[in-house]
Amino acid sequence: MPPIAADAAPIILGVVGDSAAGKSTLSGGIAAILGHDRVAMLQADDYHRYCRAERRRIGVTALDPDGNHIDILEQHLCLLRQGQPILKPVYDHVHGVLAAPERLEPKPFVIVEGLLAYHTRGLRDCFDVKVFVEPDEDLRTRWKLARDCAERGYTADLVRQSLDRREADSIAHIQPQRTFADIVVRFAPAAEHPDEAGAGLNVRHLLRPTLPHPDLGPVLDAGGKNGFHLALARDSDGKPVDVLDISGRIDGRRAKAVEDLLWSLIPEASHLRAPLGRFTDIQGKASISHPLALSQLLITYHLVKAALAAFRDQGTR
Amino acid sequence: MPPIAADAAPIILGVVGDSAAGKSTLSGGIAAILGHDRVAMLQADDYHRYCRAERRRIGVTALDPDGNHIDILEQHLCLLRQGQPILKPVYDHVHGVLAAPERLEPKPFVIVEGLLAYHTRGLRDCFDVKVFVEPDEDLRTRWKLARDCAERGYTADLVRQSLDRREADSIAHIQPQRTFADIVVRFAPAAEHPDEAGAGLNVRHLLRPTLPHPDLGPVLDAGGKNGFHLALARDSDGKPVDVLDISGRIDGRRAKAVEDLLWSLIPEASHLRAPLGRFTDIQGKASISHPLALSQLLITYHLVKAALAAFRDQGTR
Repeated sequence: MPPIAADAAPIILGVVGDSAAGKSTLSGGIAAILGHDRVAMLQADDYHRYCRAERRRIGVTALDPDGNHIDILEQHLCLLRQGQPILKPVYDHVHGVLAAPERLEPKPFVIVEGLLAYHTRGLRDCFDVKVFVEPDEDLRTRWKLARDCAERGYTADLVRQSLDRREADSIAHIQPQRTFADIVVRFAPAAEHPDEAGAGLNVRHLLRPTLPHPDLGPVLDAGGKNGFHLALARDSDGKPVDVLDISGRIDGRRAKAVEDLLWSLIPEASHLRAPLGRFTDIQGKASISHPLALSQLLITYHLVKAALAAFRDQGTR
Repeated sequence: MPPIAADAAPIILGVVGDSAAGKSTLSGGIAAILGHDRVAMLQADDYHRYCRAERRRIGVTALDPDGNHIDILEQHLCLLRQGQPILKPVYDHVHGVLAAPERLEPKPFVIVEGLLAYHTRGLRDCFDVKVFVEPDEDLRTRWKLARDCAERGYTADLVRQSLDRREADSIAHIQPQRTFADIVVRFAPAAEHPDEAGAGLNVRHLLRPTLPHPDLGPVLDAGGKNGFHLALARDSDGKPVDVLDISGRIDGRRAKAVEDLLWSLIPEASHLRAPLGRFTDIQGKASISHPLALSQLLITYHLVKAALAAFRDQGTR
C-alpha cells in the first residue's frame, strides 16, 4: 500500500447495527489487517448522553437519538475527516457511567461502530464505506446474552428485559438505517442447524450498487453447491441488489481460493495479508470462521480501494 | 441591545492570567450584566491533560502547555465561534481529577477564563476582546491562599509549595501572553495601605490601541486628585499605551459619574444596567469595589460594541 500522506483525509468505515449484532467482531478483524497503528476505532456508544441509571429514570433507551449526542458525534467525525484530533467522550459499559474523555488522534483509517451512526445525513456523508449488520434475531439474542452476562455484569433476565424495552426503539431508529448501507451483512444459522452460533453460521451480503464491488466471477459457483454464491435479487425494500451468500460449511480450500482472489485485486495491500475470521464463541472460546473472514476481507477490499483512490486524487491536486 | 440572530457568531472575551489573579471575579460581574442566559462561560482549566496526581508524577504543572489540550481548546473555540455546541472536558478543582464531559451550547457571548488561552495564534484569533489580569504579586499570593484553602482543599503550606513549583512556568508560559492583550488589568494596594486586598485596591488599566477605547474626556481629572486618571505612557515592553488609573479611594459620586458616562456610550444596552463590582473578600465576606465595577463596565462596553458591530455587519451581508 502506498504511504499515506499525513494530511490526507482518513478513510472512514461505518459498522452500524443493533446491540450485539457482531459489530466489534467484524471490525476487529478489519483493524487487524490494516494494522492497529493505522486505524482509529470510534465507538458511537461513547456519545450516550446519559448514564445507565439516568436512562432508566428518564425512560430513554441507548437506542434513542435523544439519548445520544448525535450532533457532537457528527462534529467529531467531520473533525477526524479533516485530520484533526478529538477529545471524545467515554461511556463505561461495565459500570454504565460516563467517564473522563480521551484523545483520539486521526489515523489513515477510522472505523466507527455504533447504533445510530447513519442517523443523520451529516453523519452518513462522513463515511467512505457503510456496513449494516443484521444477524438473525434469535442468533442476536444468544450473542447478546453471552456478551452482556460475561462482560457487562448483567443477568440473563436483565438482558431479556433490556431487549424487550428496546424493541420499539430498534424498529424506530436502528433498522431504518439499513437502507443507507453499501453492504448489509447477515449472519444466520442454516435451517438444518438452528442452534449454530459460531463458525458454522452462513453469511449473506447484500451488495448495493453504491460501491464498485469486486468481480467475483472467477470463483463463483454455477450451481451454488460449494458454499459461495452470487445472485441478482430485489432487496426487501424492492431495490436491486447483488446477494452474496457464503456457507458456514464452505471448505477451507474453497475459502482460500476466494481469499486469494480478493487479495489479488488489491496487490498494493498484499503485504498486509494475515489470518482473518477470528472470533470468541458464546462459550468464550477463540475460534475461526471462514464466512467471517471473507466478509472482513470484502470490506477491507473497499477500504484499500478508497485509500488508493484518495492517494491518486491527492497526486493530481 | 438589538436581538442577536441565532446564527450570529458569538462575541468572545478572553480573561487570561495566572492562578488566582482574579479572573473569575472580573468575568463574573460581566456575565451578570450581559445576562447569564446570554453568556457561555468556558474555563480553560477544564482542558488540563492530567489529573493532579498525574501532574505530580510526571512533573508537569497546570501552567505548562504540554499539560493541557491546547489544540482541542483551540478547536472548541473555533466551533463555538461557528455557533456549534461542544462537548467540553471537565476538570474537578476540588478533587483534582478529570471528570465526564459536559455540553456547552453557544450563546451570544462566550467568556473564556484561563491560564493559557492566548498561547497560540489560533487561540488568539478567536477572541473579540482580550484581557490579561496581572495583580500585584503579593496580593495574588494572598488571594491564592484564601481561595485554595477555602475552596480547593489545600493547606497554606501546599499553596506556597505550589506557587514555588509554578514560578518558572509562570514566567515561561503565562506572562508572555500579556503582550497580546487589548487591556491589561492590574489590581494593587496603594503604597500607604500595603495590606489592602479588597474594596480599597487601586486598579490600573493599560489600554492598547488594538481596540477603539471610549472617549473618557468628560470625566477625566486634570489633576488626578479625584481617583480617575488617564495618561499616555510607554508600557514595560516599550509600546505606547494609555494608562487608566482608578483609585480605591474614589468616592461613590465620582464612580457613578464614570459609570453614567460609559452607559451613555452604549445606550442600546442601558436596560442591562445593574450593580457591578461585587466580590468575595479574603475573609469570605460579600463586598463591593468601585474600581472593580468600572473595570467590568469598561470591558462590557467593548463586548456590547462588538455585538452591535457584528449585528450591523450581518444586516449588510
